[in-house]
Parts: sequence; C-alpha cells; structure tokens
Amino acid sequence: MGLFSNPKAPHMESQLHIVADSTTTPEHADEYGAALQRLAEATRTEPGCLFFDVFRSVERPERYVTLEGYADSAALTAHQAADHFQKIVLDELVPLMRTGDARVYGTPIDVPPRD
Amino acid sequence: MGLFSNPKAPHMESQLHIVADSTTTPEHADEYGAALQRLAEATRTEPGCLFFDVFRSVERPERYVTLEGYADSAALTAHQAADHFQKIVLDELVPLMRTGDARVYGTPIDVPPRD
Repeated sequence: MGLFSNPKAPHMESQLHIVADSTTTPEHADEYGAALQRLAEATRTEPGCLFFDVFRSVERPERYVTLEGYADSAALTAHQAADHFQKIVLDELVPLMRTGDARVYGTPIDVPPRD
Repeated sequence: MGLFSNPKAPHMESQLHIVADSTTTPEHADEYGAALQRLAEATRTEPGCLFFDVFRSVERPERYVTLEGYADSAALTAHQAADHFQKIVLDELVPLMRTGDARVYGTPIDVPPRD
C-alpha cells in the first residue's frame, strides 16, 4: 500500500474522521493515557465506530492524539451520547485536560501515488 | 478551546492535512521513530509546512502516526521533493516499513460545541 494510497471503504463518502489532540499535565500524563485507552476500547464496541486508536507524542509525553472514524454523523452523535463518553471524557479526561482540540474531517482526498 | 472547536487559520481553505499511519517491525521500532522525528524537525523548516508532529501508538509500539499540515498542494509537492523527504522517507523509513498509509484531508468540518 503506497504512502499516499487512499483505499475507499463502502459508504466512505459519509464517514467522519476525527483527530482529537489534547494535552494534560506532566504529572497526569500516564493516567490520562490510560483513560484514553479505556475510551478507545469502549468506543470500538459502538456499532458506528470504524476505528479508534490512541497515540502519544514522541516529543511531549503529556500530549496525546486519538484517531477516530465514524460511519456517519449519526454514529458520531451516538458516540458523544454514550455512557463511556460521558464517564471517561467528561468526568475523567476533561478535568485533567490542559488543552484540547479536535478536527473533524470528511472523506479523504485522493492523491495519486508519487511513483 | 472546546473539544470540537475548529479555529480557522488564514487561508485555511487551501490547507492540506495529512495523517500518515505506518508500522515497522518490533525490532526496528525505536530506530524508525527516531527517523520520523528527524523528518519532523527537517520538514518544519519548509516554508509551506504548518505543523508536523510524530505520535506513537499506545497499543503497538511499532506503529507511528505523523500529523502534517501544509499551506496548499504546492507546499505538499515541495515537501515530497525535498532532500530530507528523499533521504529520510525513501532511504530510511520505507525500507523499515511494514505497512504505510496516509490520508490527505482538506479543510476540517465545522462542528458546533457540544455544550
């Protein structure tokens, strides 16, 4: 699979992809990441979740990114209404969050392979 | 800044954001990440690079994601033509790469704050 390949999944046109970028305090960095991983495992059980993976910054251990895919906007709404979203995001992560931003993207752009 | 805020930068309409997701072998995982970090530092010196950050999977240490932003398609083309792209991506990373895929996105979608 090429670096810039873009395989289309069925119904990909309606998919929403989220890059949620947040930071916590250095002293809470491990705890915060563990809560994000619990959120990933819970969210993957949602029927409309396509993927949910947690990544930690190589430069700043208190910074994390989640890559999230939802089948459509209804699936994203269902995610935000789920008990685990309320309990983990709002009750556990937000109180430890120093900065938080999420970019929501639609269908990726097709880019031809470089070679 | 809300979890789903989407502050617009000037000329954001033309920006390209890339999520480059790749894996290497467990025995090369640290070396691969170090090369990605050198790529980040070199790419940030490109005039058309808006951001370039390296993240490592919490679940699979041999998996990395880079989040990249370019001012426009010409900036992305310039990145792919840069010496450091050729030397680090093609000569160092690709030989160690087990899987590699990059999604290229346009302008993020505005999503109203949840609360």
